[in-house]
Amino acid sequence: MTINEIKGLIDRSLFASLGYTDESGRQNIRRVFCVWHKGLGTHIISTNTSSSHVKSLLKNSNACLYFSDDTSFEAVCLYGKAEICTDRHYKELLWNEGDEKYYPGGIDDEDYCVIVFTAESGRYYRADGKADLSAGAITEYDKECKLENGYSNTHS
Amino acid sequence: MTINEIKGLIDRSLFASLGYTDESGRQNIRRVFCVWHKGLGTHIISTNTSSSHVKSLLKNSNACLYFSDDTSFEAVCLYGKAEICTDRHYKELLWNEGDEKYYPGGIDDEDYCVIVFTAESGRYYRADGKADLSAGAITEYDKECKLENGYSNTHS
Repeated sequence: MTINEIKGLIDRSLFASLGYTDESGRQNIRRVFCVWHKGLGTHIISTNTSSSHVKSLLKNSNACLYFSDDTSFEAVCLYGKAEICTDRHYKELLWNEGDEKYYPGGIDDEDYCVIVFTAESGRYYRADGKADLSAGAITEYDKECKLENGYSNTHS
Repeated sequence: MTINEIKGLIDRSLFASLGYTDESGRQNIRRVFCVWHKGLGTHIISTNTSSSHVKSLLKNSNACLYFSDDTSFEAVCLYGKAEICTDRHYKELLWNEGDEKYYPGGIDDEDYCVIVFTAESGRYYRADGKADLSAGAITEYDKECKLENGYSNTHS
């Protein structure tokens, strides 16, 4: 896969799978709505502060974020850190009309937070080949990138 | 979710996400074709012996197996062990016509193996509630179950 094909897979995805270690030391996965990306290296996910994966990530932020397309048999696994953030800028950016049903207190609801996933490296998989994605390649690609809703851009 | 609804989600799935710790100690995920199940507790997956997740699982078999439906917002994460097995019975059972393109040596190809995932417990997620799935509930449910291709049963 070219780096643009990897970015295309990420942008057209609505969800990703977040892999982390939970408080019992178990491997755990949570499916997350993930459409806000800055290039290949930064991904912002809104979630409930009270959820179990947030508690686990506060103790151990090492995580992976996996995007895949079961139709084209393409996948990319990003390795890095998933950090919990309550920065109002991100919370405003990710807020959608109707989110009050999840967070009755609105943008400042204490149960509303964002996960900032920062990739250090990655690995991609497709029938025609799999290979690593280096930290250098991610940094180089991301230089020109802004934080954008990839799904909206792809599906508009 | 009732236990039958959890089983229904597993059976209608064609793929699952396998979460494991790789040889660098990183959380890692691999999307796997997963249609052979014995109840809720045993899941058999065919794969390449030479693939990196097999190497990782041979060193650390602790893993999770995650089934999800992005349309109905249902998911179940099973926690347990993913063990590499070359039992000919399983290899024959999972062999499909045309698999020679992946394993030129046929059923006895050394690059063809199966992962036997055994769940010790689980957790399910749906909008109307999330809860743990105990070892006892899995054992009780599985008593009457045979090893079956759930996807074929569901889609025939």
